[in-house]
Amino acid sequence: MPPIARYLPILDWGRRYDRDTLSDDLIAAVIVTIMLIPQSLAYALLAGMPPEAGLYASIAPIMLYAIFGTSRALAVGPVAVVSLMTAAALGQIAQQGTIGYATAALTLAALSGVILLAMGLFRLGFLANFLSHPVIAGFITASGVIIAVGQLRHVLGIAGGGDNLIELVESLLRNLPDTNFHTLALGASATAFLFWVRRGLKPMLRRAGLGPRMADIFAKAGPVAAVVATTLVVWGFDLANRGVAIVGEVPQSLPPLTLPDFSPDLIGQLFLPALLISVIGFVESISVAQTLAAKKRERVKPDQELIGLGAANLGAAFSGGFPVTGGFSRSVVNFDAGARTPAAGAFTAVGLAIAALALTPLIHFLPKATLAATIIVAVLSLVDFTILTRAWAYSKADFLAVLTTILVTLGFGVELGVSSGVAISILLYLFRTSRPHIAEVGRIPGTEHFRNILRHKVETDPGTVSLRVDESLYFANARFLEDYILDRVTRDKAIRNVILQCTAVNEIDMSALESLEAINTRLGEMGLSLHLSEVKGPVMDRLKQSHFLDVLTGRVFLSQHEAVLATMQRGASASPLDTTPEPRQAQG
Amino acid sequence: MPPIARYLPILDWGRRYDRDTLSDDLIAAVIVTIMLIPQSLAYALLAGMPPEAGLYASIAPIMLYAIFGTSRALAVGPVAVVSLMTAAALGQIAQQGTIGYATAALTLAALSGVILLAMGLFRLGFLANFLSHPVIAGFITASGVIIAVGQLRHVLGIAGGGDNLIELVESLLRNLPDTNFHTLALGASATAFLFWVRRGLKPMLRRAGLGPRMADIFAKAGPVAAVVATTLVVWGFDLANRGVAIVGEVPQSLPPLTLPDFSPDLIGQLFLPALLISVIGFVESISVAQTLAAKKRERVKPDQELIGLGAANLGAAFSGGFPVTGGFSRSVVNFDAGARTPAAGAFTAVGLAIAALALTPLIHFLPKATLAATIIVAVLSLVDFTILTRAWAYSKADFLAVLTTILVTLGFGVELGVSSGVAISILLYLFRTSRPHIAEVGRIPGTEHFRNILRHKVETDPGTVSLRVDESLYFANARFLEDYILDRVTRDKAIRNVILQCTAVNEIDMSALESLEAINTRLGEMGLSLHLSEVKGPVMDRLKQSHFLDVLTGRVFLSQHEAVLATMQRGASASPLDTTPEPRQAQG
Repeated sequence: MPPIARYLPILDWGRRYDRDTLSDDLIAAVIVTIMLIPQSLAYALLAGMPPEAGLYASIAPIMLYAIFGTSRALAVGPVAVVSLMTAAALGQIAQQGTIGYATAALTLAALSGVILLAMGLFRLGFLANFLSHPVIAGFITASGVIIAVGQLRHVLGIAGGGDNLIELVESLLRNLPDTNFHTLALGASATAFLFWVRRGLKPMLRRAGLGPRMADIFAKAGPVAAVVATTLVVWGFDLANRGVAIVGEVPQSLPPLTLPDFSPDLIGQLFLPALLISVIGFVESISVAQTLAAKKRERVKPDQELIGLGAANLGAAFSGGFPVTGGFSRSVVNFDAGARTPAAGAFTAVGLAIAALALTPLIHFLPKATLAATIIVAVLSLVDFTILTRAWAYSKADFLAVLTTILVTLGFGVELGVSSGVAISILLYLFRTSRPHIAEVGRIPGTEHFRNILRHKVETDPGTVSLRVDESLYFANARFLEDYILDRVTRDKAIRNVILQCTAVNEIDMSALESLEAINTRLGEMGLSLHLSEVKGPVMDRLKQSHFLDVLTGRVFLSQHEAVLATMQRGASASPLDTTPEPRQAQG
Repeated sequence: MPPIARYLPILDWGRRYDRDTLSDDLIAAVIVTIMLIPQSLAYALLAGMPPEAGLYASIAPIMLYAIFGTSRALAVGPVAVVSLMTAAALGQIAQQGTIGYATAALTLAALSGVILLAMGLFRLGFLANFLSHPVIAGFITASGVIIAVGQLRHVLGIAGGGDNLIELVESLLRNLPDTNFHTLALGASATAFLFWVRRGLKPMLRRAGLGPRMADIFAKAGPVAAVVATTLVVWGFDLANRGVAIVGEVPQSLPPLTLPDFSPDLIGQLFLPALLISVIGFVESISVAQTLAAKKRERVKPDQELIGLGAANLGAAFSGGFPVTGGFSRSVVNFDAGARTPAAGAFTAVGLAIAALALTPLIHFLPKATLAATIIVAVLSLVDFTILTRAWAYSKADFLAVLTTILVTLGFGVELGVSSGVAISILLYLFRTSRPHIAEVGRIPGTEHFRNILRHKVETDPGTVSLRVDESLYFANARFLEDYILDRVTRDKAIRNVILQCTAVNEIDMSALESLEAINTRLGEMGLSLHLSEVKGPVMDRLKQSHFLDVLTGRVFLSQHEAVLATMQRGASASPLDTTPEPRQAQG
């Protein structure tokens, strides 16, 4: 592979492109295009953008991802959670519907693109790992609830809004008396229909003899039917004049060339939201891409994915869009419809460009309630509160992280929700490792095995205490170890030797080294010796670079058994360990 | 011990108080009082407070610490680094010398008191562990430089100021032409004298036959001599009228009863600085207390120390002071002078109260340059840039943390400096554990030992890959493991079994569990089996609560040896491991 191909995967698959692949990709593109039209409009509504922005955000980004991305099936464009985060971020800057709002959306997409590109070029994809699975699951569930509740106002035909559940519910209740019943009838029917499509249509189609893939694709096309039907109803019964909110005038145009506002103030305000949107979008996208790639035993490259998504967002920024990422449902449809290369995405972009040029007059009478209905039905499939019970059953720390994420997201909005989830996961991890499990060990009689004296019947020597620390030693637990050992030896005046068994110590950082030095000095002042046993190679290499081994009051032993034998001989008392030492693995 | 005594250590030592202890404590108190008078005035100057505030900050706090603290020798009051942090925090709120500044100082002390008390009551002392030793060392060194450079203006008799090194140097250079040469003569002499006291006086006294302790105490009383001499010079030559800045009018009074301003705005602005001051103060204090306690084989209780320091700061807040903590030099003097109980502190407080009532007229002509000189000489002993070379030699990650802390502190001030030090330590730790060492292991011929195939001559079976992960599995490295294993098996088509040797896995959190499930599923789809070996007890308990073991494509083996034998029998190929299995520890 030429070096440039590392950053341009298109050079790799493009050279092997043939007629068969072309026809598969074209079929997939047609199906995905039909599905994407209502979805793009809906997510534009969710992001607070004009409907055409949803189409624009699906055209250039898909094209750019096709050139730079590594997934064969990923379909890039506006997605629910990122659109919600976009609305939350922009709501602090400007009013929906203003020029300022649309320009800030471009800036947000541009920032997100730059952040993703930088993460890809500097191989910082690992940063996404700090979003733990439970935090993501909790965040998506809470976001789904916020999105669904937020869209209810479009189904009811009332005003209102808010960034968190409390504001949304309060605004819904306050405006409930203004409900427009034409809108409600349309919205409720569309919602019910879409639920039925999702739950009832697929089994029906299967029974009618359709394959599972085709049944699924048809079911995913349900929103198109809802869009067509409700648009006709609004047009036929002139409901737009009876208070039903419609999409209205949409420009007939290819995506325009737009320039984000790069004023330092705006960048300052949008940087953190852009970072969160980038990371959340990347995590969502990479999960979908990896799942689909694994089905064909392919691999996606996370760092190159960052570059692909970064390019897609920059594309959105300069073509009238808003932040985008790889979407789950559309990617699955793309995959199931037989897409074989990113070219399928490029053809989808062409299809959407045609739609933006030619079809926009047809959606003039499309009621916003229908779009809201497609959003509600789509996001409710993301809502899964069982993550709480699963986390509770598995680990209380994970449960606490999920619960915090859900509650803060619902109560204070998406940005604080995801930030607090990350923060609490990290704090809980540091907290756990800051109080490591320390086992006092003794020898299992007749063996060279040393086990926890609380769990096994073992022999120990009263003059020696052997401690196995089940954690790397680093700043967060260095002082704990100091306290633990000094407490242990001040409680028991018979102790002359302390052996630290370092089997599970993968690292000793400088703080821990200073604590070990302090322990060594204080034990020395009390007339005790500190020994180490079974120190791992890399840790020992590191210790040799310090002066710790020179001042160590005791010795470093290769095995715990040797350490105990040696300290026993130092101590005068007759010990229960006084048996003939047996060479390890004598039978080998 | 009655339960109440846990929170009131005074009930413990107070009952056993006798005449001998009293006389020892009284002597120590007299010595410490003499030493504390110039120190308190100096640190008040550093904190931007009026001189009497330094005395007040040493009276009630010492009393309260005597009741609630556990250290027998710790002397509480204003200290250099905390005073610097106080000035930095208050400088953002109000101008030095205004009522607003002094009131904000009370609020800062009160907040710090509440934070320390809360940390003590909720046993959150472990939070201080996140300040790694190298970060603290770097922070103190950089703070020492900032303090010393900041005090130069008092030695030169010029105006100016600043929160970081750049501002301070720039302001010094700009105001240099205004140097007052009377002030400079006084300040330079005092500085030179104090350096000589520190370096030359102590050896001289030793040679004159004084014991090392007494020599040290006399040397520490040097500032008192400088204060007396320069005050007399200023008074005798009427230098106050020649531009030498003096302490001036100081009220003759016991500490006043003061009320901090608890407006939410002020609390919001001061919360973060108060948190940093609390943690830094606690870390400083506990290190001193533990060092001194260890010399007498005593222990201090970190949680109770938090309560003691919290009470001391609340005391400062309600008696005209500013944030305080346990000071290093005064505690060492207290210890060396023979203090045996916290009562020595109480007597010191009485001594200082008498000074505040009776001696303040005597310091009217004390030049500020002398106070600046005592500060400069005191803090330069804290400056130790060798932490950089030591960290570089031991660990590049620790070096990066120290360097960041020093540079950010010097360049952007104390708050950002210590915050960035903590943040970068945590990030670097997470980064290291996010790419754990994974060793591919094979059997050492003739044994049941499995070692890294890159480091040892070992036997392996082509159909099986055994991986030992040298780290707990958690959210930050879950996806790394997923990538690593899937990359490994897609590279080598002969593999039928993957064994994860879990010797060093102290934890598997929910994210890692989901990654293991994903690995298991994907390996299963490729026709491969995933096995685990040597899973620790607590980890296994946890796994049993999930459904992972039900869906595992392979098995869980007690030892790596058993795992290899079993998978070898599954694989058809004749393998180099095909020897008779020997029961482990047959000789036992």
